[in-house]
Amino acid sequence: MTADTITAADIRINARWLIPIEPADVVLEYQALLVQGDRIAAIVSQSEADSRFRAKETIDLPSHVVLPGLINMHGHAAMSLFRGLADDLPLMTWLNDHIWPAEGAFVSEEFIADGTQLAMAEMLRTGTTTFSDMYFFPEIVAQLARDAGMRAQICFPLLDFPTPWGAGPVDYLTKGEAFIRQWHGDPFIMPAIGPHAPYTVSDEPLKKAVALSRATGARIQIHLHETAFEVADALEKSGKRPTQRLVELEVLGPETQCVHMTQIDDTDLSLLQKAGAHVIHCPESNLKLASGLSPVQKFRNAGINVAIGTDGAASNNDLDLFGELSTAAMLAKVVADDASALSAHEALAMATIQGAKALGRDHELGTLEAGKLADIIAVDLGDPFLQPVYDPASHLVYSNHGRQVSHSWINGVPQVQEGKLTRIDVPDLMLRVRGWADRIREQQSS
Amino acid sequence: MTADTITAADIRINARWLIPIEPADVVLEYQALLVQGDRIAAIVSQSEADSRFRAKETIDLPSHVVLPGLINMHGHAAMSLFRGLADDLPLMTWLNDHIWPAEGAFVSEEFIADGTQLAMAEMLRTGTTTFSDMYFFPEIVAQLARDAGMRAQICFPLLDFPTPWGAGPVDYLTKGEAFIRQWHGDPFIMPAIGPHAPYTVSDEPLKKAVALSRATGARIQIHLHETAFEVADALEKSGKRPTQRLVELEVLGPETQCVHMTQIDDTDLSLLQKAGAHVIHCPESNLKLASGLSPVQKFRNAGINVAIGTDGAASNNDLDLFGELSTAAMLAKVVADDASALSAHEALAMATIQGAKALGRDHELGTLEAGKLADIIAVDLGDPFLQPVYDPASHLVYSNHGRQVSHSWINGVPQVQEGKLTRIDVPDLMLRVRGWADRIREQQSS
Repeated sequence: MTADTITAADIRINARWLIPIEPADVVLEYQALLVQGDRIAAIVSQSEADSRFRAKETIDLPSHVVLPGLINMHGHAAMSLFRGLADDLPLMTWLNDHIWPAEGAFVSEEFIADGTQLAMAEMLRTGTTTFSDMYFFPEIVAQLARDAGMRAQICFPLLDFPTPWGAGPVDYLTKGEAFIRQWHGDPFIMPAIGPHAPYTVSDEPLKKAVALSRATGARIQIHLHETAFEVADALEKSGKRPTQRLVELEVLGPETQCVHMTQIDDTDLSLLQKAGAHVIHCPESNLKLASGLSPVQKFRNAGINVAIGTDGAASNNDLDLFGELSTAAMLAKVVADDASALSAHEALAMATIQGAKALGRDHELGTLEAGKLADIIAVDLGDPFLQPVYDPASHLVYSNHGRQVSHSWINGVPQVQEGKLTRIDVPDLMLRVRGWADRIREQQSS
Repeated sequence: MTADTITAADIRINARWLIPIEPADVVLEYQALLVQGDRIAAIVSQSEADSRFRAKETIDLPSHVVLPGLINMHGHAAMSLFRGLADDLPLMTWLNDHIWPAEGAFVSEEFIADGTQLAMAEMLRTGTTTFSDMYFFPEIVAQLARDAGMRAQICFPLLDFPTPWGAGPVDYLTKGEAFIRQWHGDPFIMPAIGPHAPYTVSDEPLKKAVALSRATGARIQIHLHETAFEVADALEKSGKRPTQRLVELEVLGPETQCVHMTQIDDTDLSLLQKAGAHVIHCPESNLKLASGLSPVQKFRNAGINVAIGTDGAASNNDLDLFGELSTAAMLAKVVADDASALSAHEALAMATIQGAKALGRDHELGTLEAGKLADIIAVDLGDPFLQPVYDPASHLVYSNHGRQVSHSWINGVPQVQEGKLTRIDVPDLMLRVRGWADRIREQQSS
């Protein structure tokens, strides 16, 4: 090597371990990851990096594992302000007596802005670099995510009835189309269509959602087969299981993300498989609301892409995707009656490349490979109570939690450094959160 | 009040929130907890504390919840040295190809000492003040727990075959009886009898275990109904379900702790209920090894006492009882098909007073009440990403993890202060752990 072969880089990360996700099941040791601009320039041995690259900044991570930023594929970000407001209640009591009254009283542009920032802060702190959101005022959420430099799929809500964001389906679709056109092609914001659920959206608006998706390329995300009641009720009212109805309306396709998917029979499985639709698994929400068990291993065996989401903090009650991964990997085994189901590496793929696939961005997100966008996190496994470390993939999934995330970058820009957020003013955010909490507490006790 | 009514106390803890566990479902605010010697002297309002007590040391916990120390009722402490050594494997592959060879190569007095210290350090750090252990060299584990000032039930192993600790059942029972007599009446160490499982211990040693329990008052802890295979195999070989056989051998009674208890039919339930035996629920181990689902709510409805344990770190892969509680509370709901099953407060009771009941020490452990032993922990809910806090019980179970534990005391003696262990030399421990890890890694790859 001669001096003229030396390439400049913005950042060099020296990683004790590096899990690229692809190739699968691989843990690399003592690698250097080079970032140039918004992209990963190279992943090479540290000695090769010494001879080939000169970086402006070098970060040594001697007890850390470096992996792609996590992709949280389902949530209702601003509901973080309702975290732990009401628990241990049957779904309808929870909604009727607590969540809906609180939403009716508080959801506004300001509430959405502060709640979304709280959620983004928690997600960044715990390793998420891309999230999906489905809640009110999507234009505000999109702008906030863009300002914070987070990647986000923002689904505008579509329901049969009015909400604080709109008067009904026609209004939602008009606003939604404008929203999609506004953000079309943005590298951070992926505007999408969020029909709430089969039981809250009629055939006509669902058909229009499909047409809008086809015209714009926007993804569709829908809650589907969340509970046994949903399936039984649909069967009683229409003679059709919800999945069947969505197939007939052409809602299910490679652009569609189906959230929850419990109560799956063989016909459902085959319809999903043929449609090429994606499953978004939310194990903790499904457990906590007693919704049901999603057959993750069956989906995987059928070649269906499964990504993962935390759901909102009101029903979880946190946005730590590492905790969700741990639950997913453990639960999949008992559901499949097979301790080898959903291995640690497979769980990590579910939270990275499989999320990117559901978003249609697996060509540039979800793995650590030269040429991909630099969405990267580092997790410190040096904590004494994580020792010994035989396999960092195992530790990430089974022994870790999101607070061990030490660093993250999105698009090559630092978001977390030494465990501290770089772009969100946390003390200021806390003042606003305290204000909301006081008002919500008062309303609940009145 | 006049000056002569002022009482001296060693420690005064000013708590933002205090969950006494009994009375149930209660969160007290702005209380002072006074410790005198090894006991809780009083729990009173802070203003009453000002006028009635003068403490040598006052600790202000303005964003913390104070509760009884957690009781981890099942584990194999020294297996912490095998944490994450092998995962995602069917039980028999995991045992045959990884755990048993590693145990065969490494289990010794020194291994047990270092592994147990690592486990105690992690348990203390994450809020456990009392643990139960079932592994080799119980006399070493007992002495280490005593030296560290932790409370522990130490079950000596009883099996049909030889192990590094003894030649067979007669040898185990002889050593075990001496062990029980040595520690009888100790305030920290509760020696107990640990027949491994119905399928590894014959009738004769089980009968002797019962006799020994009756003669000494020692508790019996046994793995029972861990897997469907165990139950099916017993039925095939003896025509009896394991629970039935243990009832006939008089193993099940109020002194007996049955660990795991999946695959429960109505007869099992009724037998357990009549016997007054305790269930030790290990949800994460049951999920991760695909063992099965334990019907916690059914046990509770039948009046059976259910405590909780992490199991060993090799099959979990951590000893954080707060994480275990979260899994338990979420899982119980889907298993019972009822979102109100195992509420946050009920989960906390499972990890405190119900553990104390299983140990027969609920008169002096498991709640915060004047006169009880001062086993106390504090959890800091001030972390920005835990906000807002409407109900600290909810946060402890659904949003928390053990690293938020800031303080603990056992018998009135500080064990954790500002998140740091006071009585275990962690850097020295880490050197020893690294040595074991290197040797184990070498053996596994050879």
